[in-house]
Amino acid sequence: MTERMITSRRRFLAAALMSFLVVAPPAELLAQGIDPLPSWNEGPAKQSIRAFIEGVVQEGSPNFIPVDERIAVFDNDGTLWSEQPVYFQFAFALDRLQDLAKANPALAGQEPYKSALSGDPKALAALGEKGLLQIIGLTHAGLTVAEFNAEVGDWLKTARHPRFDRPYTDLVFQPMLELLATLRASGFKTYIVSGGGVEFMSAFTEAVYGIPPEQVVGSSGKTEFVLDGDTPVLRKLPEVEFIDDGPGKPVGINRFIGRRPVFAAGNSDGDQQMLQWTTMNNGARFGLIVHHTDAVREWAYDRDSKVGRLDKALDEASRRGWLVVDMKNDWKVVYPFEKKQ
Amino acid sequence: MTERMITSRRRFLAAALMSFLVVAPPAELLAQGIDPLPSWNEGPAKQSIRAFIEGVVQEGSPNFIPVDERIAVFDNDGTLWSEQPVYFQFAFALDRLQDLAKANPALAGQEPYKSALSGDPKALAALGEKGLLQIIGLTHAGLTVAEFNAEVGDWLKTARHPRFDRPYTDLVFQPMLELLATLRASGFKTYIVSGGGVEFMSAFTEAVYGIPPEQVVGSSGKTEFVLDGDTPVLRKLPEVEFIDDGPGKPVGINRFIGRRPVFAAGNSDGDQQMLQWTTMNNGARFGLIVHHTDAVREWAYDRDSKVGRLDKALDEASRRGWLVVDMKNDWKVVYPFEKKQ
Repeated sequence: MTERMITSRRRFLAAALMSFLVVAPPAELLAQGIDPLPSWNEGPAKQSIRAFIEGVVQEGSPNFIPVDERIAVFDNDGTLWSEQPVYFQFAFALDRLQDLAKANPALAGQEPYKSALSGDPKALAALGEKGLLQIIGLTHAGLTVAEFNAEVGDWLKTARHPRFDRPYTDLVFQPMLELLATLRASGFKTYIVSGGGVEFMSAFTEAVYGIPPEQVVGSSGKTEFVLDGDTPVLRKLPEVEFIDDGPGKPVGINRFIGRRPVFAAGNSDGDQQMLQWTTMNNGARFGLIVHHTDAVREWAYDRDSKVGRLDKALDEASRRGWLVVDMKNDWKVVYPFEKKQ
Repeated sequence: MTERMITSRRRFLAAALMSFLVVAPPAELLAQGIDPLPSWNEGPAKQSIRAFIEGVVQEGSPNFIPVDERIAVFDNDGTLWSEQPVYFQFAFALDRLQDLAKANPALAGQEPYKSALSGDPKALAALGEKGLLQIIGLTHAGLTVAEFNAEVGDWLKTARHPRFDRPYTDLVFQPMLELLATLRASGFKTYIVSGGGVEFMSAFTEAVYGIPPEQVVGSSGKTEFVLDGDTPVLRKLPEVEFIDDGPGKPVGINRFIGRRPVFAAGNSDGDQQMLQWTTMNNGARFGLIVHHTDAVREWAYDRDSKVGRLDKALDEASRRGWLVVDMKNDWKVVYPFEKKQ
């Protein structure tokens, strides 16, 4: 055996070990006494997720799904991280609006910026969709994509959530991180399909969720390509291009992923059509709704909420067999930092 | 050692073998005397591709690129398969127009359908972009996405290219298949970024190029999500949503992939901005243009061609260091079927 062959054998074994770690399915972890979902309380919710995954990976099972088709889609706001008192991307927009108003004081006298800058919750709530889109348009445009990514990166490092006094990315749901990891370990490709902006999310999804930019589907503004001397740039324009919400979610899934998912998780009526598109199909399918029922550890809201309203989708859940996760009772831990305290 | 542990070991070794086959880089193949690009003639073109890949995968090399960033984008028409005498998707549209005209004879009297149905090359050439889009609109809309996929699948099985009397998917470029496979074996994620319709391409890219639907970026029409009783469907509308061509290619890359590529291959002025966006950046980057110079085995055309016009991008190539592949001299084999004859 030559030196080269030995090196090649070593690489082979290293690659083998990696691939084993990556694809070890939950059934094998369970056999070793390792629970891949430790932050989920034992009960029907955890049981049904486990049963679904075990069927999907089991060759010969009626619920078996080939690896190529194991596409799982997750809403982001309210499903993978919190969304109160305002969508975190809107908190970013408000902070950026304040910076812009410092540079250009006239903004503070113009609506809807005046109301937004007042910080008054009632004034914010009264902005309406048009006002929100104007604020997003102003605060998200006029930059190149690279500059915008840097702005988001800086904000995520410095901004603190008003209730928890922690970085916004601390407010991700530990049980959902475990679910993402378990699905990936079982051969699923995990995607975000969110009403949030695709460039805003791509700044943190890989580090926080293990989901790379190419697996993030979201709303987008128009961009234009220009050569600035010998530097090619993509410039963000203040015009909406695509809203990835409600019936836009199956449309976005079709355009970006080109396959119909077999697993979908959401938390609001904006996820209803994605849940329909995923689950109303032949074969093993799974729909999951995160129900915010925990006013102590997180928030409790559904039908009357301005943010993350869950009404029609909740009514439809039992009819379609979607799992409604009761955050208060089904989750042992909500945020990763609880474990460390 | 228990029975279960032995089974687990066996699975481990099977997974190991798979992962080794998948990631064996070209340098290791070369060391074993296996040429990963056998359909490329020896010479500067092949040499520069090989040198680029070897630098990218070599840790410690100034040209090393981490696996996550190894994004390679390929135009489709004229780059991965032929595009003469008309784009193959347009041949599909013309065949479908004939079917529609049989069902609805009035179409044959209306322009631009009348000219298109005449089969006269001059009339076809005179249709202009507006006429082409009208024909694409009529022939690609009114179906659900699933019905459209089935139509394309049937057409690819039955239609024959007029010059070669073979299925259109036979006219893929063997050297480019080898390049795709070599890049993937070297840790690259390969994408199609084409002016063609994303749903048209997704019907065959996985089987033909090994590129799954989620790695196909293309032009798209509007679709709408509707619940047809208890059946959710996506219905194709006769409206253009996004043209993934020229400056639209970097825009599409940003929206769909969210990362800047390090390798780009094209063949026409429609690929110029994608080549700029990819190569005018720090670090090892590679731009490749397929120059159609072989009138005997394929076609010879560039600056004056109606289809796949290559003019400004050809002028820019030497200034930017893009590799211009001379199909006649650099390719030993053009189509896979030549090898088998």
